[in-house]
Amino acid sequence: MATISTYKYTIQPQDVDFTLRASASSIVNYMLNVAGLDAHNKGFGVEVLQDSSLTWVLLRFCTEINYRPEQYETVEIDTWISDFNRLSSTRNFRMRIGDRVIASGVSMWCVLNMETRQSADMSMMKEAHDKFIVAEPSPIAAPGRLRAIESAVTVSRPVVYSDIDFNRHVNTMRYVDMVFDSYPLEIFEAKDAMRLDINFLAEARYGETISVGYVEEENNRQFEITSDSGKTLCRAKVEIKKNL
Amino acid sequence: MATISTYKYTIQPQDVDFTLRASASSIVNYMLNVAGLDAHNKGFGVEVLQDSSLTWVLLRFCTEINYRPEQYETVEIDTWISDFNRLSSTRNFRMRIGDRVIASGVSMWCVLNMETRQSADMSMMKEAHDKFIVAEPSPIAAPGRLRAIESAVTVSRPVVYSDIDFNRHVNTMRYVDMVFDSYPLEIFEAKDAMRLDINFLAEARYGETISVGYVEEENNRQFEITSDSGKTLCRAKVEIKKNL
Repeated sequence: MATISTYKYTIQPQDVDFTLRASASSIVNYMLNVAGLDAHNKGFGVEVLQDSSLTWVLLRFCTEINYRPEQYETVEIDTWISDFNRLSSTRNFRMRIGDRVIASGVSMWCVLNMETRQSADMSMMKEAHDKFIVAEPSPIAAPGRLRAIESAVTVSRPVVYSDIDFNRHVNTMRYVDMVFDSYPLEIFEAKDAMRLDINFLAEARYGETISVGYVEEENNRQFEITSDSGKTLCRAKVEIKKNL
Repeated sequence: MATISTYKYTIQPQDVDFTLRASASSIVNYMLNVAGLDAHNKGFGVEVLQDSSLTWVLLRFCTEINYRPEQYETVEIDTWISDFNRLSSTRNFRMRIGDRVIASGVSMWCVLNMETRQSADMSMMKEAHDKFIVAEPSPIAAPGRLRAIESAVTVSRPVVYSDIDFNRHVNTMRYVDMVFDSYPLEIFEAKDAMRLDINFLAEARYGETISVGYVEEENNRQFEITSDSGKTLCRAKVEIKKNL
């Protein structure tokens, strides 16, 4: 029977913001690193797919963060796959300090054909995955499908070397940084819980210019990140859950 | 007798660039993390200084990188203080895989009074430091004092949340990223050795706009990073040592 896997990390200086607590982007990054490592350990990591010119691509992700851990605090991250079909797989995360859950996450992945840049039928991987599906539901509501918004662009900048990963497109941490860079610093000093939903629609490649716009409604801010070619790269939504 | 201390790390996915090898900024970051950790372990970490409204500030740094380690490779970093006087202390680094030295570094630090933002006399820390000075010279030539250059600005951008550290100024990794973002991607595919020298002259604080300019001469590129208030924040020089 498949069981939940757990990975342990110590929060490093580069993970924390000016409050000395892990930034949302580094919490997301830890979860995605665990996804990569666990897929590797189970025999369907990106290096196996690349032999067939395929790669994992993140479609949607959400996280609810109740507490951002401090520099040098040690956290454990539980991860498990709860669903797999020919179009996507669902991987879950629970970040804990001891028994206390401090953040949860749900990710939905597809397989991309690196030559056609189109998503591939994942049926061929069903057998390898089925034995790793854990009968434990996602810890939080699945990432929402975000609708288009009309927003004024607030920031534009080119995609540079330090933005890109081995797929040569902008990595997820950078999008999360761009979202939170739009907030005033006070929001990070308050210790409010928050939820982030993010949808990935297209790749931003080296040399393109990306623009961030958002609209705000009470404690929700919804983001549209676009490229200079006019395509929408990514949509995101942040809900700040004010402490009562 | 003081001896060299060694810290072990595994290169994480967020440390590597599109070539799946650690970026120069993450190699610098590992060295600086070791500096922070080793100072902490020896009783003169930033958290001790902060009780007296003081903090460590990096004045100059240099590194020579012969090999950029791959994702999940394990490296060991040796560190030791070779010199200490009332104006600065010198801390050295050697990054190794087994016995093979893959990168070396030298850092020069001063103590900043957080209230006056002026550098403090370090005599009061002499005794605490003296017992940790190791009679081993720096592994490479000390960081050079870089002269001002006249250069056209190539990129400008505001300082945002994700740029700043607990001192609320732009952290070193970001400057190193800005330097290397100016190069074409081919430079990172070539496996040439390189040397980086960097001088820190002023802090870039949240809300300021920073600009990067450079001049090039053969395999050397020299950088001037300035703020919109006209002050020079940082100078850097990169020498690419072409493989023969």
